[in-house]
Amino acid sequence: MLRTHQLGTLSAENIGETVTLTGWVARRRDHGGVAFLDLRDASGFAQVVVRDEEDFHPLRNEFVLQITGKVERRPEGNENPALATGQIEVIADSVVVLNTSAPLPFQIDEHVEVGEEARLRHRYLDLRRPTPSRNIRLRSEANRIARNLLHDDGFVEIETPTLTRSTPEGARDFLVPARLAPGSWYALPQSPQLFKQLLQVGGFEKYYQIARCYRDEDFRADRQPEFTQLDIEASFVEQDDIIALGESLVQAIWKLIDVEIPTPIARITYHEAMAKYGSDKPDLRFGLELSDMTDFFKDTEFGVFKAPHVGAVVMPGGASQPRRTLDGWQEFAKQRGHKGLAYVLYKEDGELAGPVAKNLTDVERAGLAEATGATPGDCIFFAAGEKSEARALLGAARVEIGHRTGLIKEGDWAFVWVVDAPMFEPAAAAVASGDVAVGTGAWTAVHHAFTSPKPEFMDTFDTDPENALAYAYDIVCNGNEIGGGSIRIHQADVQQRVFKMMGIDEEAAQEKFGFLLEGFKFGAPPHGGIALGWDRVLQLLTGSDSIRDVIAFPKTGGGFDPLTSAPAPITAQQRKEAGVDTKPEAKKAETNESAKAEAK
Amino acid sequence: MLRTHQLGTLSAENIGETVTLTGWVARRRDHGGVAFLDLRDASGFAQVVVRDEEDFHPLRNEFVLQITGKVERRPEGNENPALATGQIEVIADSVVVLNTSAPLPFQIDEHVEVGEEARLRHRYLDLRRPTPSRNIRLRSEANRIARNLLHDDGFVEIETPTLTRSTPEGARDFLVPARLAPGSWYALPQSPQLFKQLLQVGGFEKYYQIARCYRDEDFRADRQPEFTQLDIEASFVEQDDIIALGESLVQAIWKLIDVEIPTPIARITYHEAMAKYGSDKPDLRFGLELSDMTDFFKDTEFGVFKAPHVGAVVMPGGASQPRRTLDGWQEFAKQRGHKGLAYVLYKEDGELAGPVAKNLTDVERAGLAEATGATPGDCIFFAAGEKSEARALLGAARVEIGHRTGLIKEGDWAFVWVVDAPMFEPAAAAVASGDVAVGTGAWTAVHHAFTSPKPEFMDTFDTDPENALAYAYDIVCNGNEIGGGSIRIHQADVQQRVFKMMGIDEEAAQEKFGFLLEGFKFGAPPHGGIALGWDRVLQLLTGSDSIRDVIAFPKTGGGFDPLTSAPAPITAQQRKEAGVDTKPEAKKAETNESAKAEAK
Repeated sequence: MLRTHQLGTLSAENIGETVTLTGWVARRRDHGGVAFLDLRDASGFAQVVVRDEEDFHPLRNEFVLQITGKVERRPEGNENPALATGQIEVIADSVVVLNTSAPLPFQIDEHVEVGEEARLRHRYLDLRRPTPSRNIRLRSEANRIARNLLHDDGFVEIETPTLTRSTPEGARDFLVPARLAPGSWYALPQSPQLFKQLLQVGGFEKYYQIARCYRDEDFRADRQPEFTQLDIEASFVEQDDIIALGESLVQAIWKLIDVEIPTPIARITYHEAMAKYGSDKPDLRFGLELSDMTDFFKDTEFGVFKAPHVGAVVMPGGASQPRRTLDGWQEFAKQRGHKGLAYVLYKEDGELAGPVAKNLTDVERAGLAEATGATPGDCIFFAAGEKSEARALLGAARVEIGHRTGLIKEGDWAFVWVVDAPMFEPAAAAVASGDVAVGTGAWTAVHHAFTSPKPEFMDTFDTDPENALAYAYDIVCNGNEIGGGSIRIHQADVQQRVFKMMGIDEEAAQEKFGFLLEGFKFGAPPHGGIALGWDRVLQLLTGSDSIRDVIAFPKTGGGFDPLTSAPAPITAQQRKEAGVDTKPEAKKAETNESAKAEAK
Repeated sequence: MLRTHQLGTLSAENIGETVTLTGWVARRRDHGGVAFLDLRDASGFAQVVVRDEEDFHPLRNEFVLQITGKVERRPEGNENPALATGQIEVIADSVVVLNTSAPLPFQIDEHVEVGEEARLRHRYLDLRRPTPSRNIRLRSEANRIARNLLHDDGFVEIETPTLTRSTPEGARDFLVPARLAPGSWYALPQSPQLFKQLLQVGGFEKYYQIARCYRDEDFRADRQPEFTQLDIEASFVEQDDIIALGESLVQAIWKLIDVEIPTPIARITYHEAMAKYGSDKPDLRFGLELSDMTDFFKDTEFGVFKAPHVGAVVMPGGASQPRRTLDGWQEFAKQRGHKGLAYVLYKEDGELAGPVAKNLTDVERAGLAEATGATPGDCIFFAAGEKSEARALLGAARVEIGHRTGLIKEGDWAFVWVVDAPMFEPAAAAVASGDVAVGTGAWTAVHHAFTSPKPEFMDTFDTDPENALAYAYDIVCNGNEIGGGSIRIHQADVQQRVFKMMGIDEEAAQEKFGFLLEGFKFGAPPHGGIALGWDRVLQLLTGSDSIRDVIAFPKTGGGFDPLTSAPAPITAQQRKEAGVDTKPEAKKAETNESAKAEAK
């Protein structure tokens, strides 16, 4: 080693020792012929005193030094109690510059002025800053804690392939040309789903993996083309077993930031979550349930409320919002594809104000407070229209209210399991929300095609798809889905029926999933599992704004890496060698789809 | 859970308890109205007695059952001491068939008759067999042991991107079209090399990752397109530090199979390894050093030995090999691209026999035994020609001799570090051995472009590339390279000089590695690391014939997966969406290479 001690480990116990240290110049103060350096390494800081001007004159911030010198007690009054090593300083005998540094594009401080793109372009400098460094280290600890827990519970870590076949799960696949089989392509997996199920068929019973997954999406919001999930699957389990395991994991992980999560974590059905919170990932750090006002307004004469569904949510203290803020709420609704957000201001004096109020009958006005739970001083927001759309708007408004009113408090944690989700949704709805509907049917899977119906819908899910519930469970933290799973189908005939519902005919099923159906023939055990979205878990755990903050080298919107400038053009030679331009003779499946595309 | 106990945990202590068990029917014996089932789960086996013929009649091998029944002591004389649960049996009250099984393509036994392709096509059945199952479980344990050791040593686990930019390290990259930037492509990393170096620039000091890597090779021998390495990098280290860490890891891993590896592990220089063993990965489970006979034959009149280099290796007891076997050795040499393998039989009576012997002078015949170390009864093999080629042939012959003569013993372990490798080799040699030479220079890196010269060659490596030694170290086990690493370059100017040596001009260096050179400007610390070829380590640890045996879902030659039939054709729609056919306007770098290709 080029050093004898790590900086952060030095203490009064080392006084009198000659040590060799390495690190970066974090700060330098000159005091007439003496320079005081704050030297930084991964373990912390220590103060180094350099007395030779020839030595310290050339030093700049972020120079890498090797210092040999003697540890001494700092002169009285110069101690720094904020620093672990604040009692001592090292008097340098020799200063070796291991490397220099050009002037930095931004400083290595907790707060920087530059934007994210600049930070990511020099991510190696960004990672020297306290918070990014701490985030990545915490991630390593979370990996360790999760693995230890799973190991202690008998789980086996198994790596699954990433150059594989398409596992359609609602997004496009990234593709990789196979040079040795020109015209053929690998797909990068959207998850290890099929392999982890086949490992159950293979008798491992308890599998896990911190797995890299890939989804070629349009990078809405806070997504990455490659992401990580803690992937788990087990045999002979029931829903409660996986839920209990998920709770143990979440407990262990949150303990890393000294948060005790009480268990069992509450459960809510999908339908209840939608009704009360307008979301399948409700933020339960606060109450403020939505009210269903459809009945209340069933005879209304106010045109806007003559709708299949009318709902409301109350903003405590919202009656005093200025006009500009109320206009802002209209903008909020428009950005979400709605015309606006109707409201009634319930003034402190009991008056109902705002443009909607005068359209209401006296009876409606009289009953409004009780029906919505509003008290004087509140604002009541309304949404009217199709049930799912109205609820979605109110659900979003509810969360916004939570933030604006301080009902959502920094440091609060609310976990909930959302269970009993529908098995299918109309394919059009999936496409509208940005997913790729798997199959060509009118219905597509809400979770994925491998999720079992709950036992009571086993016979009817394909005759009454609208009402069939899936054996699925999502775990939600502070309004973020951090994981989800299900009991899987383990019988070839049930799997075939689900494929059929989704418009995947027998031939296509054989072509795409033949190996899974084949596996189910030979004694596939009942099994189920869960995957935790590891980036999202770490984002929450570190209190970060984005999953980008917990990924060592993240990509920005559009999948661009500002550091390496990937993706990049390839050369003609690479293109030729990779066999990119070889198109195999049209296969039957391909012909079908082309024909279909043309017929549109 | 669908069970109360795992089968393998049952013992006499459970006698009298009512238990619910799940598992696969491994074997079934009928004894007039009673069936005895060997039920198998991940934990082991237990015997189940089914008395109801209606229950047991339909059961077949690999049916998945849920059995509820009472644990009883086996009747005296029926105990099975070979089985952990051999004292008890479970008398079934209820037999639920959780799933059936079609007749198997091969039996779930230790030994099967079918070929590897059939096993891989039904890999989930193959994995139920004892050895494949054990291999995958041992791999999980090896991961755990390695991670624990690294954690205890202060290492941080950090995930690096896999959708990234080319990191040329001697093989082709797998490419991924970027749909959102048509005409641009990601590359799958050949290793996390550049990222782990940038993490050192980022101040992490101690990084590790069990990393998936990708090399688009021609699948010579026992390779996989995706493979795993235990990837390690640290700052402020010297060669001895990384070597010590590598030894701790190897010790801890081999302890899993109760093998104590004495440390320090021997070191040998690259040149010594080539001279003594004709290989840069010498198998040191046995001696049999090569002899350099060039001087001995410098005045020879035998034409074959009038060569730049003549070497020999002795096969103990080889004088009695029948003619057919000796002919086989000629074939052995021809398969390796040589004309043949000259030999002299040193008969028990002291006579020298064989076709070469009569071409030697009396002086040569008299001195031969002493010069080669042969004793009566041995066979002396010779190779003459270019030094490296002659040594390579004798090195291969030496290993073959080791196997044939029993000098290599099952259960022996010999580790060695090969150090002081040349920094560069002629680019033509790299290409001849199947690598892709990075750059267009006459020389290319033996390790990779980021390996530092040893300090004593820092000034001369680009004026005298032939003699420059790299600060690199490979660890070899039983003749297999299981890992390698180096102290890296951390200074932009040194890195530029190495690129220049390899024929990567400044523009190309900026284009390909600009982000690394940029990083080196801002206080890059001295650093180095190692990567262990995790598949190879596990192959050796499990005593497997191939790395395929330690990969859950491996690919066969040509990168084909018999299970999923990946790679596969893509549809016209996928092709279109992925933007595969978009070619960006010719970039400068591309134009250069095209022009070069055309000029050839």
